[in-house]
Amino acid sequence: MDASEGAGAQVFDWLDAEAGRRAETGLSRRLQPRSPVSPELDLAGNDYLGLARDKRVAGAAAAAALRWGAGATGSRLVTGSTELHAELEHELARFCGTQSALVFSSGFTANLGAVTALSGQESAIVTDRYIHASLIEGCRLSRADIAAVAHGDPAAVKHALSTRRKSRALVVTDSVFSVDGDLAPLAELSAACRAHGAALLVDDAHGFGVLGEGGRGAVHAAGLSGEPDVVTTITLSKSLGAQGGAVLGPRRVIRHLVDTARSFIFDTGLAPSSAAAALAALGVLKAEPGLPGRVLDNAARLYGQLSDAGFAVTEPQAAVVSVRAPSPEDAVAWAARCAEQGVRVGCFRPPSVPDGVSRLRLTARADLTESEVDTAVKVISATAPRGATS
Amino acid sequence: MDASEGAGAQVFDWLDAEAGRRAETGLSRRLQPRSPVSPELDLAGNDYLGLARDKRVAGAAAAAALRWGAGATGSRLVTGSTELHAELEHELARFCGTQSALVFSSGFTANLGAVTALSGQESAIVTDRYIHASLIEGCRLSRADIAAVAHGDPAAVKHALSTRRKSRALVVTDSVFSVDGDLAPLAELSAACRAHGAALLVDDAHGFGVLGEGGRGAVHAAGLSGEPDVVTTITLSKSLGAQGGAVLGPRRVIRHLVDTARSFIFDTGLAPSSAAAALAALGVLKAEPGLPGRVLDNAARLYGQLSDAGFAVTEPQAAVVSVRAPSPEDAVAWAARCAEQGVRVGCFRPPSVPDGVSRLRLTARADLTESEVDTAVKVISATAPRGATS
Ligand SMILES: Cc1ncc(COP(=O)(O)O)c(C=O)c1O
Ligand SMILES: Cc1ncc(COP(=O)(O)O)c(C=O)c1O
Repeated sequence: MDASEGAGAQVFDWLDAEAGRRAETGLSRRLQPRSPVSPELDLAGNDYLGLARDKRVAGAAAAAALRWGAGATGSRLVTGSTELHAELEHELARFCGTQSALVFSSGFTANLGAVTALSGQESAIVTDRYIHASLIEGCRLSRADIAAVAHGDPAAVKHALSTRRKSRALVVTDSVFSVDGDLAPLAELSAACRAHGAALLVDDAHGFGVLGEGGRGAVHAAGLSGEPDVVTTITLSKSLGAQGGAVLGPRRVIRHLVDTARSFIFDTGLAPSSAAAALAALGVLKAEPGLPGRVLDNAARLYGQLSDAGFAVTEPQAAVVSVRAPSPEDAVAWAARCAEQGVRVGCFRPPSVPDGVSRLRLTARADLTESEVDTAVKVISATAPRGATS
Repeated sequence: MDASEGAGAQVFDWLDAEAGRRAETGLSRRLQPRSPVSPELDLAGNDYLGLARDKRVAGAAAAAALRWGAGATGSRLVTGSTELHAELEHELARFCGTQSALVFSSGFTANLGAVTALSGQESAIVTDRYIHASLIEGCRLSRADIAAVAHGDPAAVKHALSTRRKSRALVVTDSVFSVDGDLAPLAELSAACRAHGAALLVDDAHGFGVLGEGGRGAVHAAGLSGEPDVVTTITLSKSLGAQGGAVLGPRRVIRHLVDTARSFIFDTGLAPSSAAAALAALGVLKAEPGLPGRVLDNAARLYGQLSDAGFAVTEPQAAVVSVRAPSPEDAVAWAARCAEQGVRVGCFRPPSVPDGVSRLRLTARADLTESEVDTAVKVISATAPRGATS
C-alpha cells in the first residue's frame, strides 16, 4: 500500500476501473433530480392513472402523515401495522377477488418475500427469462432448483415442469413485461401449472390498474384471481401513485408469508402516508372504472403514430410502448434531445434490458391528451438517431 | 388430484403442514393493527427520538405529499429522483462527514444494494454471524465467498481475511446488533480490514441518531466516517421516524451503486413524503443535539431497574434493552400480558433471534419520562413468567 495515499485509500480502486469500462460502452448512469413543477411532458413515469398528484390521493397521504405520524415505527409484526394497513389489505383483496392480501414496503420486497416463502430447497422454480429483477433476486435467494426458460413460451415451462427433480414447483412470471410491455400467456401458464401440480406466481405490477375489469389487473382478466393455486404480487407505486407492494392470494399463503417471509418480518412497515395514498387511489379507481381504458387508448395512439413513422415499436398490451434504439449511446442521446424539447422519455439500457437491446421506454397515462400524445410523437421523430427507423 | 376439491386446490397443502409445526413450537405470528391514538406506553417501536409524530416531521411529510405528489412515479434513474431526494442525500452526507450518500426505498434494499454492489464473484465477504437479515440476504445474492464468523470477534474476522481465497474482501457488520443492542468492535474491525486490504461495510441502523456526536452514529463515533475504505448504511425508519434507507460513503462507491445496485435501479424511488420527513427529522436532530443522550439515559434506567429485579438483561449500548424469556411461548404470553396492562413491548422469537433465545425487546425513546420507565418496569416485573428471573 502506498502510505502517501493514506490507509485504505486503494481498497475501492476497482470501482474506478469498472466505471471506466461502463463509460466506454455507454452504460454510465446519472441521477437527474426533478423539480416539483415540471414543464416537461412526462412519458417516462409509471403513474399510469395520473393519480400520484391527484388531490384526493396526495391529500389522503398528507392527512395520514398528520394523523398516524411519518413512519410506521417498526416492523409489521411489532408496531408497524396500523388500521390503515389492515384496511388497505382488506380492500385490495376485495377488489381483486382474492381471500387475502399483505402489504410490503415496496413491490421489490413483496416479490422477494413471495418467491422465497413459496419455494425453498424442496422446490423447483420455473421462470420466464425476462422476469423483473426483484423476482430474479427472489429466485436467487430461494435455494430452489431454478429453470429460466425462453420468453413467453408455455411449452418450455411445461417441459421444465415435467422434467423437474423436486416435487414442489412454482412458476414465476410478470404479467406485463416491464421493458417491452408484452403480455405473459397467463391462461396457458396456469394450465401448465394445473397439469403438473405447480403453483403460479404472477407479478402484476404493470397490469394492475390498467388491465382487466375496472383495472383489476391481468390475473383477474385471465380469470385466475381467487384461484387456490395462484398468487399475485402488485406494486402500489405505479397505477396507485404511491409506494409499497402487496401480495394477493389464498389466506393460507398470506399467513405463511406473515410467519416466514424475511423481507416482511425484517423490514419496517410501509409509511402510513403511502398506505393511505394507495387506499385513496384504489377508491378513485373504483369510482372511475373508465380510467384504465384511457391508458390503453393513449398507448394505442402512441404506438400507431410511431409505427407509422417507421420506428421499431412493440404493440402495447398495456401502458408501456417501447421503441428500439440502435445503441445505448444513441438511446441516451435520443432521450436527452427529447428532454431538451420538453418530453421526458425513459431510456433503458443493459442491465435493465434482458435482451441487451437499448430502448426508449414510453408510458401512456390516463390523463394525457391527444394533442400531448401527438406532440410527443413529433418530438421523438424529430430527435431520432440515424438507424432508428426502418 | 381429488376433483371434488377443484383444480389446484392442493398445491399449497404443504403450507398448512408447516403452519401446524410452527403452532406446536410457539412460532406462529399474528398481525395486530394499532389505532392512531393508542393509550399504550410504547417500548416496542424503533422511533428512538420520538420524531415520527413530531409536528415538524409529520408536517413536512404532509406538505411534501401535496407539493410533490404521493409517489416518486418511477425508479430513481427515470422519474423518481426529486430535488428532495438530492437534498436529503446532501444533508445526510454532510451530517455524517462522508463524501456522498444515496437514498433507497428502505433500509432493507439499501443493505441489499450495498452488499451486492461492493462484492461479487471475485470477492470474499466476512460477516459477523449475527448480522441483520437484510445483510444476510445481500450476502446470499452476492455470489461472493462467504465466511460468517463468531459474534463480536475481530480475531475471527482477521483469521478469515488472512485465509481468504479471493483478493477483494468486504467485512460486513451491524454497528448495534438489533436483537441484544450490543456494539460491534468497529475500531478493531477497521484495523483488521486495513491490515488485510479489505473494505468495511457497517449497518448503522440502530446507531444513527442515538450514538456519536449529536447522533452522527456509531461509525462516526469510531472515527471512521469519511474514511476511504468504509461504507455505512442507515435507515430512515428508526431515529428519523420515516421510511427509507441510505448508503453513505466515498463518492466513487455511491456512483458505483447508481450504476450497478439492482435494488436501487429496479425499484421505485422513495415517496417524497418519506424523504421530506427524514430531512425534517435530521433538521430536528441537528437543532437538538441533546436528544440522543436522553435515549441512552432512558435505556440505562430501564436496564438498571430490570437487572436489579433479577432479569437476564443485556447492558444497553444504545436504545435496545433485551430481556431473556424462558421459551417462545413464554415470551409471547409475557408480551401479551404487558400489552393488557398498557405496555407494548417487542417479542422476538426464532427466526428473528440468531441464537434461538426468545426475548422481550424493549426500546428506549428520547421522549419517555422517568415515571413511564418506572411504570414499564413495574408491569414487566409483575407479568414475568416463572424462570425469567435468576
Ligand atoms: C414488474 C415489476 N415488478 C416489481 C417492481 C418493483 O416495484 P416497486 O418499484 O414498487 O418496488 C417493478 C418496478 O419497479 C416492476 O416493474
Ligand atoms: C440492523 C437493521 N438493518 C436494516 C434494517 C432494515 O431497515 P428498514 O426497516 O428501514 O428497511 C433493520 C430493521 O428493520 C435493522 O434492524
